[in-house]
Amino acid sequence: MRTREIVLARRPEGLARPSDFGLETRVLPPLPPGSVRVRALYWAADPGMRARLGGVRSYVEPVAIGGVVGGAAIAEVLESCSDSFAAGDLVTGLLGWREAGDFPEAALKKAPERGGMPIGALLGLLGTPGITAYFGIGEVGRVKAGDTVLVTSAAGAVGAAAGQIARLRGAHVVGLAGSDAKAEWLTTAAGFAQAVNYRKLDDLSTALGRLFPDGIDVLFDNVGNRMVDVVLPHMKLRGRIVVCGQTEDYSLAPERRHGIRNTSHVISQRLRIEGLLAYDHAPRYGEAIAHIRDWWQAGQLVAHEDIVEGFEQLPGAFCDLFAGQSFGRKLVAASPQGGPAQ
Amino acid sequence: MRTREIVLARRPEGLARPSDFGLETRVLPPLPPGSVRVRALYWAADPGMRARLGGVRSYVEPVAIGGVVGGAAIAEVLESCSDSFAAGDLVTGLLGWREAGDFPEAALKKAPERGGMPIGALLGLLGTPGITAYFGIGEVGRVKAGDTVLVTSAAGAVGAAAGQIARLRGAHVVGLAGSDAKAEWLTTAAGFAQAVNYRKLDDLSTALGRLFPDGIDVLFDNVGNRMVDVVLPHMKLRGRIVVCGQTEDYSLAPERRHGIRNTSHVISQRLRIEGLLAYDHAPRYGEAIAHIRDWWQAGQLVAHEDIVEGFEQLPGAFCDLFAGQSFGRKLVAASPQGGPAQ
Repeated sequence: MRTREIVLARRPEGLARPSDFGLETRVLPPLPPGSVRVRALYWAADPGMRARLGGVRSYVEPVAIGGVVGGAAIAEVLESCSDSFAAGDLVTGLLGWREAGDFPEAALKKAPERGGMPIGALLGLLGTPGITAYFGIGEVGRVKAGDTVLVTSAAGAVGAAAGQIARLRGAHVVGLAGSDAKAEWLTTAAGFAQAVNYRKLDDLSTALGRLFPDGIDVLFDNVGNRMVDVVLPHMKLRGRIVVCGQTEDYSLAPERRHGIRNTSHVISQRLRIEGLLAYDHAPRYGEAIAHIRDWWQAGQLVAHEDIVEGFEQLPGAFCDLFAGQSFGRKLVAASPQGGPAQ
Repeated sequence: MRTREIVLARRPEGLARPSDFGLETRVLPPLPPGSVRVRALYWAADPGMRARLGGVRSYVEPVAIGGVVGGAAIAEVLESCSDSFAAGDLVTGLLGWREAGDFPEAALKKAPERGGMPIGALLGLLGTPGITAYFGIGEVGRVKAGDTVLVTSAAGAVGAAAGQIARLRGAHVVGLAGSDAKAEWLTTAAGFAQAVNYRKLDDLSTALGRLFPDGIDVLFDNVGNRMVDVVLPHMKLRGRIVVCGQTEDYSLAPERRHGIRNTSHVISQRLRIEGLLAYDHAPRYGEAIAHIRDWWQAGQLVAHEDIVEGFEQLPGAFCDLFAGQSFGRKLVAASPQGGPAQ
């Protein structure tokens, strides 16, 4: 069986470009015992991947030059030499940017009951973005009723879920987004109290003073360094900064980053700045998924999907993330015909 | 009764200089009802005061131009119109840089039992520095046996206490200090596992890699921004950064600070960066003082005092702090004759 894979051709400098990637065709050998052959249906274009393309050891190993780019996908099982999976099963996992592949059973997870949610939700509200938002707001941010919460990249998959979950906990939630359309979606569909297109602001700090006259209890940040620095003087006593993503910093070498300088507020307000990864909470994924599904079914939690079709669109879809070109969860769907993998 | 006061003559630019302060003489009016007249015996030269001289609102109000400079002192009660204090009582409080003054009783605290500790300990191990170290290590840093701990400004009053308390909790403690003499004192008298004169290092990050081959669990920082940035890549999974002091940053406007840029490690290692102020733990001061006194009596906790004599030395003693000229707790003692206040 033939499959196509997207490999890292060179380490991107600054913003990633489609030409940093290459497309290769490979023939899968016969399926080894204990393994499972899957065909991907959807891939996530995930900003967090950018850090892995730079060659720096992070919480996961960097992608090697010539190696298949990593990333989460939804797939169906084509053939199984494992007792845990059968042909036709829907699975998720870090399957990488490949149309089909063979995996040890431990690398795959059976998709949870969706309860009517669209299949893409397996990479969105029911996947890492939704679960990250759930634990980021509940455990790291400890958002409670009456808190004031600022979410950056608020129309992104994680930000939109985080803001809504904060609202469901009784917080007053404001989102920053990169277009009027996104800001409008946040206040109408997603129920944010306010949302602002930050590109239209003369001065973000002035706007934050107006949006939060009494200060901010929780910053849920997906942008990085520069954003944390601007927000710090607006934080309230014992405020929490949930460091969820650093989309802007991923493409910048540390010495080119703005740097967090307003650190006196960390002492004067006794702030807590804490990093978040969903998989620290893996034993409680079931709880998160059940809540998220219930909220969705009750119409209290929505998601915006941005779906592009065709495996070969993956590099372009990924690069668009950093130009503010995506809205909600960016997914790439396999062609309906299934392409060469069938 | 006449008294002398040190006032802020102008806001310092960069490092504070003695010429930023002025000396004034004042006559105290008759003692109002409910008030207590005290005569200071020792004043603390405290780096944290620098932030208040810059005119920026911090956790306490900035000192006004022409106003008496704030700061902790040990004093004896001369005359009391309060039932809570009697002439001869030893008290502490934020009495400011004045030889004598009248205070409402709520501004004064009776000195705790010293159990043989020197009187200066009331501004050191038994005062804010010791208590800050106690809660910084125990509550914010949550240092436990086997942890690796780095303390900056380790020969300062708070740093030395913090490192020793971490050692008493079973941690492996390394200190950074600004002279060979301080480093030697840390490893001999104070029982640090290692101490380094950072002024002799070519590259701090390389040295940290050598000192902590398996990484750092807790950074107890008294320096600020630049130090946190260098240490971040050396932090272990779920490491804690206790933001206790920012001696270097106090004299720099935010835009001139180095800035924390290595923030990717906050996510990849799920670090927690948290600000510390002792007085958040006021209900538990008694517990801290009892432990500190016991450790001192058992010879397990020591302090280095750097005592200068003469009220008029206060501005100079304070300015010396920022040139790395102090070693341990810097105190200014009233002249034995008591000067004009008597």
